[in-house]
Amino acid sequence: MLAMKITIFGKGNMGQAIGHNFEEAGNTVEYYGSHDHATDLGQIVIMAVPYPALKSLATQYANELVGKIVVDITNPLNFDTWDELVVPADGSAAQQLQEQLGQSTVLKAFNTNFAATLKSGKNGDQTTTVLVAGNDQAAKDTFSDALKGSPLTVVDAGALKRAREMEAMGFLQMTLAANKKISWNGGWNLIHG
Amino acid sequence: MLAMKITIFGKGNMGQAIGHNFEEAGNTVEYYGSHDHATDLGQIVIMAVPYPALKSLATQYANELVGKIVVDITNPLNFDTWDELVVPADGSAAQQLQEQLGQSTVLKAFNTNFAATLKSGKNGDQTTTVLVAGNDQAAKDTFSDALKGSPLTVVDAGALKRAREMEAMGFLQMTLAANKKISWNGGWNLIHG
Repeated sequence: MLAMKITIFGKGNMGQAIGHNFEEAGNTVEYYGSHDHATDLGQIVIMAVPYPALKSLATQYANELVGKIVVDITNPLNFDTWDELVVPADGSAAQQLQEQLGQSTVLKAFNTNFAATLKSGKNGDQTTTVLVAGNDQAAKDTFSDALKGSPLTVVDAGALKRAREMEAMGFLQMTLAANKKISWNGGWNLIHG
Repeated sequence: MLAMKITIFGKGNMGQAIGHNFEEAGNTVEYYGSHDHATDLGQIVIMAVPYPALKSLATQYANELVGKIVVDITNPLNFDTWDELVVPADGSAAQQLQEQLGQSTVLKAFNTNFAATLKSGKNGDQTTTVLVAGNDQAAKDTFSDALKGSPLTVVDAGALKRAREMEAMGFLQMTLAANKKISWNGGWNLIHG
């Protein structure tokens, strides 16, 4: 395995849980909060911020993100109503980010996972499954390689267009937890059958 | 438990697997194929047909379906491209059916389950989870009651509007199986955590 440098924007539960897995897999992980100024970003950059902060973060670091693999993890809910997404119904936050960052390679990942299942690497008695969608196969392979050695199972979910479905699924899962149908320690896990 | 009469339109894998669960729970299940003429429908009617056949089936039985709980199980994929759904991006097949059948109570269910996991009642080593969405709580409770005694776990996914997200999830799951990331015996299962 070739160890990489991973940059994580966001020091919250998700950023920490994601970073933990990249560390466990032998990579060097650097974390930055909203008041930090990051320089010399890693090959993979995780945008572990809430959707409302995504666009301005991408604007702030647009030059530094050129040529990087940029991972969008957001679930763009309307948090006033919890009844809809705030991105176009036929699109996704990830596709918006790819439009904004034309010289970066955007992947969608981690948005269908709650932080607790990323932190533990387990969902129930199984390993946690991370979906990754993107248009660049080499970038998806790099992402998967960087997580080899972590407890996570990474599954290729197809082109970036599938981020629409991943965001719908992440949204649905959050409503199930908010309505106490499941806890924030559970969620959907993929059975290979 | 009060045994009910369940009508299933569709004798395919899904219709049979769904019917098996209602039978196991002690209900009477009647199956009808496309050349049959059904009369005296049950309190719950499962539309276990592919999406392209849904509208005409609902038209054919519009009168008989008045006052019934009508369950839409479809995944309205574009089967030419496997790259999009054919319903409006902010809507769903279930919401279309509810508009068509104004005097019936439409529920969305079973579309996030592959037939094999409904037939066995297991997804991996866990019980299969069935999501149900609908605007009428009493209808959802009746649906859940009718499956008590089956091996399935039924989880209320909220209002019928959530069918959009369930159909996105069903679509995503089908693309994972078609691309051999999972088998048709697996799929998403809900961990309560």
